[in-house]
Amino acid sequence: MRTFATAVIATLLLAAPLAAAETTRIPEAALARAEGLRAQALADDTAWRVIESLTTEVGPRLAGSEADARAVAWAKAKFAELGYERIWTEPVTFPKWERRHESARVVGAHAQPLAVTALGGSPAGIVEGEVVRFDSLAALEAAAPGSLAGKLAFVDLPMPRGRDGHGYGLVSQARYGGPSAAIRAGAIGFLLRSAGTGSHRHPHTGGTHFAPGLAPIPAAALALPDADQLARLTALGPTRVRLELDCGWNGEYTSENVIGEIAGSGDGDEMVVIGGHLDSWDLGTGAIDDGAGIGITMAAGHLIGRLPRAERPARRIRVIAFANEEGGLVGGRAYAEAHHEAVRTHLIGAESDLGAGRIYAFATKVPEHAREAAAQLAAALAPLGIEYRPDTDGCGPDLYPIHGHGMACAALQQDATRYFDVQHSAADTLDAIDREELAQNVAAYTLFAFLAAAAEGDFGSAPQTPPPSPW
Amino acid sequence: MRTFATAVIATLLLAAPLAAAETTRIPEAALARAEGLRAQALADDTAWRVIESLTTEVGPRLAGSEADARAVAWAKAKFAELGYERIWTEPVTFPKWERRHESARVVGAHAQPLAVTALGGSPAGIVEGEVVRFDSLAALEAAAPGSLAGKLAFVDLPMPRGRDGHGYGLVSQARYGGPSAAIRAGAIGFLLRSAGTGSHRHPHTGGTHFAPGLAPIPAAALALPDADQLARLTALGPTRVRLELDCGWNGEYTSENVIGEIAGSGDGDEMVVIGGHLDSWDLGTGAIDDGAGIGITMAAGHLIGRLPRAERPARRIRVIAFANEEGGLVGGRAYAEAHHEAVRTHLIGAESDLGAGRIYAFATKVPEHAREAAAQLAAALAPLGIEYRPDTDGCGPDLYPIHGHGMACAALQQDATRYFDVQHSAADTLDAIDREELAQNVAAYTLFAFLAAAAEGDFGSAPQTPPPSPW
Repeated sequence: MRTFATAVIATLLLAAPLAAAETTRIPEAALARAEGLRAQALADDTAWRVIESLTTEVGPRLAGSEADARAVAWAKAKFAELGYERIWTEPVTFPKWERRHESARVVGAHAQPLAVTALGGSPAGIVEGEVVRFDSLAALEAAAPGSLAGKLAFVDLPMPRGRDGHGYGLVSQARYGGPSAAIRAGAIGFLLRSAGTGSHRHPHTGGTHFAPGLAPIPAAALALPDADQLARLTALGPTRVRLELDCGWNGEYTSENVIGEIAGSGDGDEMVVIGGHLDSWDLGTGAIDDGAGIGITMAAGHLIGRLPRAERPARRIRVIAFANEEGGLVGGRAYAEAHHEAVRTHLIGAESDLGAGRIYAFATKVPEHAREAAAQLAAALAPLGIEYRPDTDGCGPDLYPIHGHGMACAALQQDATRYFDVQHSAADTLDAIDREELAQNVAAYTLFAFLAAAAEGDFGSAPQTPPPSPW
Repeated sequence: MRTFATAVIATLLLAAPLAAAETTRIPEAALARAEGLRAQALADDTAWRVIESLTTEVGPRLAGSEADARAVAWAKAKFAELGYERIWTEPVTFPKWERRHESARVVGAHAQPLAVTALGGSPAGIVEGEVVRFDSLAALEAAAPGSLAGKLAFVDLPMPRGRDGHGYGLVSQARYGGPSAAIRAGAIGFLLRSAGTGSHRHPHTGGTHFAPGLAPIPAAALALPDADQLARLTALGPTRVRLELDCGWNGEYTSENVIGEIAGSGDGDEMVVIGGHLDSWDLGTGAIDDGAGIGITMAAGHLIGRLPRAERPARRIRVIAFANEEGGLVGGRAYAEAHHEAVRTHLIGAESDLGAGRIYAFATKVPEHAREAAAQLAAALAPLGIEYRPDTDGCGPDLYPIHGHGMACAALQQDATRYFDVQHSAADTLDAIDREELAQNVAAYTLFAFLAAAAEGDFGSAPQTPPPSPW
């Protein structure tokens, strides 16, 4: 996930659109059926098996890599295996970034290697110079032009741990804006204390950005112990680092959003949308980011699809495995571009992209006429230990673009206390997922999708003009 | 540390030698003074600063590497800075093993990288073949000759976690004996589930061995999540792995045991010996293995050395920073070779080489005449939460060789529950040490050295013929 970018969008978005409509309600029969679904979901291991299959058989799947196409083929086959009735793909085209080799080392009297990883979007390059440490992005931005000539800027801002993952916004902002600030001060390279909370030697990658008109410089993240080490060394005296990155943009690639649908009991065009993103960074196998979202939402649709057609909710369940989220919500933007004219058929959407920690809150900001139905949804989720936040907006990164076009959204907020220990690092592997917490996620998504699709009335989806892109 | 080898030695050693002597006792005045020392040690941060200095300024210090000489110079300077009155070095010569590059990947339909590290002693080589998984060393040893022709053997034996670290014996036995067993069955490469308990993607290195007459093959350890991944893949169907190692023996190197002494109040030749090893594996900065042992014992000697000469115990405190423990107790064997004729002057010894977890037991098997003094030592350690184990022998790896020549030994047993999460891996960095637990270690070593050096009488050190080397 890519919280910084999505947080920016969130602040730019208008409130959920108003719609003149009758009061939306979820029928009692659906609420009664949901009880059974909740128990089934808690006992079901489909999500675990899906994540295991994806992370084992495909492994890391950086957008545009050889594994991207294997992931698309895997998703199509997995939707079929899970009984999805309509399965299709939609093209997503983007410039391809590759990581080939990366290393860094302190040179001189305290010579030693440092664990680094290139930030997504970094150019290749070999640079060596004295390191200048800054304790925030603001401090780097305040550096005088030319003051870092021949040097490497090092932003050493620790990320606070927290259930809602709010600390990520600040540190990923440094990741995103740091290289441009470093260039403006004359730096030849950029080093970041990883945007993460893991204490291992695995650096956390993530996308960065170079402002137009600036000549990009090699930009990399240090593992947290290595950031601490470099802080100690620079405190001892002038410290030179050699950073060698072989990575960069390499042509264009067309991947696919992979979409599976479970039919409703009705035959209308309306659907509830859930999903996650199929791509991952290349360092780990993308278990929590975002194999979890794929597994949770594929399993939720599957559990609803196991019901006889007549017992299903009226609307379809659409599960989207988005392409190239990590490169900048590329799949989500392509989806919005392709579907925004049909935004009214998208009853409400929720994307899972914050791992598989226990869901602790159901947040949705819907118009007045849908608040009773949202409260009914919340009441059905409450036995899972999920509280209701009726005035909080959000829906996961890839759905923000279509949310901007007016699709109603909900967020099933995962406990992110441990998420940033492994996110975007080599440690994002299957063992990072707790099976019991995962099952609670599946139950929540299953209930959400089932009940929202059964609602009589809408949640406020209506066309609107999206705000300008923050990119 | 290198528990497997030392465990083998321990079982081969004779019981502590008997000596006809008067009953050894620790004077009340010394016991009273120890109360103050315990409190001072618990509040002192010398050990932390020593470890921070070593791991930051020298960093990784593989025996024979460029950093080996820097570590020796660092140790001499640090002994001087800490007020040691005699400081000298003794040469330790050994063949040098180097790690240059290592990688592994699954090839074929599930192509993906695997996190590996070469085992110490492995030759260079590029091999590719089908992986055959074994769940124990015994299972691999039972493989028919030729049955692994063209294949890679994979021993996937999990290490149990435990306070006394006993699980390490079994898995490091697989590390040590696995490659030879693989060669006998015709394998072209050897893969080990790391001998460790860490859940990160850092493989754990460690020394291996090739039986005489066998042509060595590339041998590497997989991180635990990668071992799990490879187990899942081999369960799905035939799985090919390409292992590329560039490493190997490269000439001979002479390093140094670095020795510092705090004078006693007397002027005899007797001393209490404590220490740790100065070398480390190259993947981390060697904080728990064995920066901790260096820091704990340098600090203990320093705290005793701060006392006015007249208030010190009669005997000297000798602190030894051993060279090249990881290559097979090379420094410890050189020390025994140089000093075994003076074994009677070595009153008793204890080495810290199991990290810096809280010390929970004081184990020493001394002759009858020294049991009362050992019980006095144990009573002084008890307020630190340390229990007495009067019938357990042991003294840390580098002191085993001279223990074999008759030096009395004691073990201050560290809680190793989390030690093997990071030992021999890139995650062995300063942050793996808990400062409060470290201070308890310093207090224990300070009391042990102070009181043993103050004892009236001996602990049974007397010349004996060492058992045959297990190598």
